[in-house]
Formats: sequence, C-alpha cells, structure tokens
Amino acid sequence: MDIQLKNGERLDELHRNGYQIIQDPERFCFGMDAVLLAGFTKVRPGEKVLDLGTGTGILPILLEARTKGASFTGLEIQKESADMAFRSVSLNHLEDRVHIVTGDIREADRLFGAGSYHVVTSNPPYMPDLHGLKNPGEAKAIARHEILCTLEDVISQTARLLMPCGRFYLVHRPFRLAEILTCLCSHGLEPKRMCMVHPYADREPNMVLIEALKGGRSGMTVEKPLVIFEKPGVYRSEIREIYGY
Amino acid sequence: MDIQLKNGERLDELHRNGYQIIQDPERFCFGMDAVLLAGFTKVRPGEKVLDLGTGTGILPILLEARTKGASFTGLEIQKESADMAFRSVSLNHLEDRVHIVTGDIREADRLFGAGSYHVVTSNPPYMPDLHGLKNPGEAKAIARHEILCTLEDVISQTARLLMPCGRFYLVHRPFRLAEILTCLCSHGLEPKRMCMVHPYADREPNMVLIEALKGGRSGMTVEKPLVIFEKPGVYRSEIREIYGY
Repeated sequence: MDIQLKNGERLDELHRNGYQIIQDPERFCFGMDAVLLAGFTKVRPGEKVLDLGTGTGILPILLEARTKGASFTGLEIQKESADMAFRSVSLNHLEDRVHIVTGDIREADRLFGAGSYHVVTSNPPYMPDLHGLKNPGEAKAIARHEILCTLEDVISQTARLLMPCGRFYLVHRPFRLAEILTCLCSHGLEPKRMCMVHPYADREPNMVLIEALKGGRSGMTVEKPLVIFEKPGVYRSEIREIYGY
Repeated sequence: MDIQLKNGERLDELHRNGYQIIQDPERFCFGMDAVLLAGFTKVRPGEKVLDLGTGTGILPILLEARTKGASFTGLEIQKESADMAFRSVSLNHLEDRVHIVTGDIREADRLFGAGSYHVVTSNPPYMPDLHGLKNPGEAKAIARHEILCTLEDVISQTARLLMPCGRFYLVHRPFRLAEILTCLCSHGLEPKRMCMVHPYADREPNMVLIEALKGGRSGMTVEKPLVIFEKPGVYRSEIREIYGY
C-alpha cells in the first residue's frame, strides 16, 4: 500500500496488531510516556475515549489495539502532527474507530460537547516555564511547554468532557504533583490511582501516572513503583510487556 | 536514678545518645512512622521545633538527639501520654531543650503564638473514618483516628505557627495523598519534598513523608522510594541507619 511518507518522516513499529506509526524526528516523536500511559489506561468494552493533545495519534492507536473501546478520538492543535496522525490511522485501517481532529484543547467542550466521554487521556506539555525558549512557535516547544495550553486548561476541559464517573488518565512530571492533584480536586476529578515511574529502582521518579474519577470520593491507591531499567540499556520485563515486545 | 515507671509501662532504648523512652503498650507505642519522620526532618542549628500530637514525646526526643536545634516542644492532648513524655524528658535529662505541653492542637496558635517556629512536625491520626469505632475515647483510638483533631486542624494550625519560610514535616498514609497536598496548598504550605515508604521494593507504599515550605513556590522533589525490608524480618541498611542500630 501507499504509505505516503513526507520528507523527514519515518515509519515505526508499534508491536501491537502489526500497527505502525508515522513520525518526524524533527517535530516530536512519541516517548515512553505515551506507551506507559497507554498501559496504565483502562478502557472498558464499548467506551468512548478522547485524547487531548494527541500529537502523532499514538495514544488512540495504542488504545485501539489494547482495548475493546468503541471509539478513540485524538485532538491535536498542530496541523502537521494531526496530518501525520490521520495518515497513520489510514495506514492501519482504523478509520472506523479512530478519529483525528485538528483543534484547540481550550475549545474541546464546544467541539465535542460536555459529558460525551467515558475516558479522557492526556500526555500534555510538561514545562510551565516559558523563559529561555528560543523558538516558542516550534513544534517541539509546543509539545513540551505550556505555550498553547496549560495544565489547568487540560484539566478544566476534561472535567467538562467526561460523563459522571468518567475517568481521566494523565502522565506528567513528579515535580508538578502537588499542582496536579490540587487542580484535579478543584475540578471535581478525584485522584484514585497513582503510579510513580523510576528509571532505576533506587532513583527518583521521572514520570507519574494518575487516574482520576469524575465525582469520586476522596481516597487513592498509590501503586508499587514502575521501574524501567534492569541495568543500563535493558528494560525490565514489566516494561517489555507494556511495549508488547 | 529513679525511672518512675507506672503500672504497665516499659522502658525502650532509642539507640541515640543512650536515650530511653517510657511507653505503655496498652496505650500507644511509637511506630516506625515516628522514627522515619525523625530521619526525614531537617532541623538547622538554633531552630525552634514544635511537634503536634507528640504522644510519648518520641519526635522531640529523637530530634534533640539527631540535630542541633535550639528547642523542641511537644504538644499532646492526652494527659497520660504527656505525662509519660514528661517523665522520659526527665529520665534523659533534656529539661533544658525539650518541653512537653498538655493541650489541644486546635488551640496551638493561642498556646504558642503565631509565627513562633522554624519547624513543625506531626505524626497525626491517619484514619478519617469514625464509623465502627467501639471505643472512641480509648487512648489508641484517639491516636489513630481523627476524633480530637482532623488533618485540616493540624495543617491550618501549622500554617499559623510557622514563621515565613518555616518548614512542616508530616508522616501520613498514601491513600490520603491528594487530600494532604490539596490541604497544604490551600493553607500556603507548598509541598517541596516527598518520599514514599514501601515495605518491600515491589510493594505499594504504606507511608508517605512530606516536607512543605510556608510561602514556597510551586514545584516539588519526589525522592527515591524508601524501602523497609531486604527480606522478611531483615531491615535494609538505610533503615538500620535511621534507627541508629
């Protein structure tokens, strides 16, 4: 088939259902963050899922492969990324279940309607600090820094987009944990499950995975740590399973 | 010397400066929680420290042994516990630096004055649920359940008692993490450092240690996990060091 790769793009294996994804290293490639978030996210059969800031569409495509959800929508503001995501959906023949929409997270409730989703996922920009950014218009900067949307935007929109008892799955950096949990609670999304991700067992975590429940009661489970490496260059078996190797 | 043990009381070694502490297994004995909190707490030379809900006085006594703080005050509402703490202070000849006060956490700011401390510590009751408590007046129930003070009471009083840039050190249960961080932030105590405590490396954490800074900026460090056991019955070397074995 015609995979329609544009200049600088490459095709990567997803190790799930034989799926592949189009990426451009000059723009932004999905990281382990997205893969771990897909592994952490629970989608029940028939549920509708929305991914806010989907980039190359990695989350909806992985979740389509891993779960029996009814539909998976990815919202992305950067046209070139959304275009890659759209072509990856075609490439894997997922047009019936995966939908890529170009648009602004801050207008997601108007685009999709309040209370429309069982599950919302997001791997948002991590960095709040815009100082020292040489190219704030650059694709990578927009994906990493809160230039076009803030944590508060993602969370407030999620609170509107979810049905009652809907679930939100987020990957972020531990240094913002207090802000994340506070913001979730203030929007009626109760943190219910958290998992810290550590590069090695005896190192500080560099990612945190959080599940929040719309209208949930107070009280959460902190899971055992997820550790990436057994030794340098060697993933632990848990991580290999999440990747599907 | 006359150690003045009352009926049912026993004398335990603290493995610090030869100090000992009076406890009563029928009431409440200090746990690993208090020892780990003492290890996590940073007191600079000359600082004034207050422990809210001090029980047998374990925190002030351990911190006096471990640090060069100027004074260590323990507030305890249960007279019998405060009396044991008082006698432990005498026993170890710490009357000049350790002060035990009988009183209510909810009145701590009136007792001690606002902005009086560099450091506040607390190992408060963990359980919010009062249902099913057969003996809510029992010493152990008061130490474990929020009968005489809530998390909000401890945090709101701490915010008043600390000087600007003063530090709060708390040990609590991970299931209340979202509530704890939210409550700290809402009282102007910014979480800056957090450590999860796991019984084994591959188990869920059962304690969390938190440092918050009065008037601090957003952003926190999540430390590497603290793991208790190497194998059943054998502490990891890190834990033995904290205990001072």
